[in-house]
Amino acid sequence: MKYGIAIFPSKAVQDEANSYRKRYDPHYALIPPHITLKEAFEADLETVQEFITELKSIANQTDPFTINIQKVSTFAPVTNTIYLKVEPKQELIDLFEKINRGNFPGSQEYAFVPHITIAQKLSTEEYSDVFGSLKMKDFDLEDRIDRFQLLYQLDNGSWTVHDSFVFGKE
Amino acid sequence: MKYGIAIFPSKAVQDEANSYRKRYDPHYALIPPHITLKEAFEADLETVQEFITELKSIANQTDPFTINIQKVSTFAPVTNTIYLKVEPKQELIDLFEKINRGNFPGSQEYAFVPHITIAQKLSTEEYSDVFGSLKMKDFDLEDRIDRFQLLYQLDNGSWTVHDSFVFGKE
Repeated sequence: MKYGIAIFPSKAVQDEANSYRKRYDPHYALIPPHITLKEAFEADLETVQEFITELKSIANQTDPFTINIQKVSTFAPVTNTIYLKVEPKQELIDLFEKINRGNFPGSQEYAFVPHITIAQKLSTEEYSDVFGSLKMKDFDLEDRIDRFQLLYQLDNGSWTVHDSFVFGKE
Repeated sequence: MKYGIAIFPSKAVQDEANSYRKRYDPHYALIPPHITLKEAFEADLETVQEFITELKSIANQTDPFTINIQKVSTFAPVTNTIYLKVEPKQELIDLFEKINRGNFPGSQEYAFVPHITIAQKLSTEEYSDVFGSLKMKDFDLEDRIDRFQLLYQLDNGSWTVHDSFVFGKE
């Protein structure tokens, strides 16, 4: 089965992201707006059970923290994805690194760019239009993060939550 | 904010349900296939925090149990909803009753008919066609239930998981 790990921001931030995703993100219906902490990875049930034990322990050691979003950014020219840029707070980076340790399933070395995707798979023209107007916009979103979620993917590509990991819970 | 409580069955059962929902359920993209344990209810954050404490305690006292699905059924003529009928196992009924005690937010007195909706809001003709063919079909789905989920609703009508409550966890 395919798993992934994500943070769902507050309803207010999700509603804001969805106002763009509805028009510009073909994944709109597959998963709520999220910050990916671990990209999709294949794992069997036994491996996931062991990983869940580790994830619980990571969540226990983590304190709630605040994130801020001030603008959009893009992965262009690699892909024409547009996202709400989440300021790379140290607590968030630490959490990413703990969850992506070398011995964990699906771990890979890549730079962590915390973000909430709001547009992807656009045509070049559409991309230019949307990014052109959004890059001028100031956002002022703040959110308190106190948990992350382990999800698995269904055959239709959508994601269901398996487990919530609340920070600081014993 | 609007909350609800649901069980997500296994990926296999969700995939099966989605094969029908894709065509016959306008809520297909709003929430994964689920057994509703508590209908949508309004609550403020403080009330929900207290309720979460109760839900943890209920989950702790609950042991994993098996559910079976053998056929579809319908709420017609009240509504033309078609669903996978979940055999009303005592453990499931007990869980429903614990979560819907009179002093909890959103509790209301109504008969619990455990089900996974696969079709709703059909025209009368469509309903007759779909139910006519599905009512003849034998299903043989079994699933082990070991958790339930508290969800909240976004402005677009979709549901995000807030918390997972795993049975027997201390």
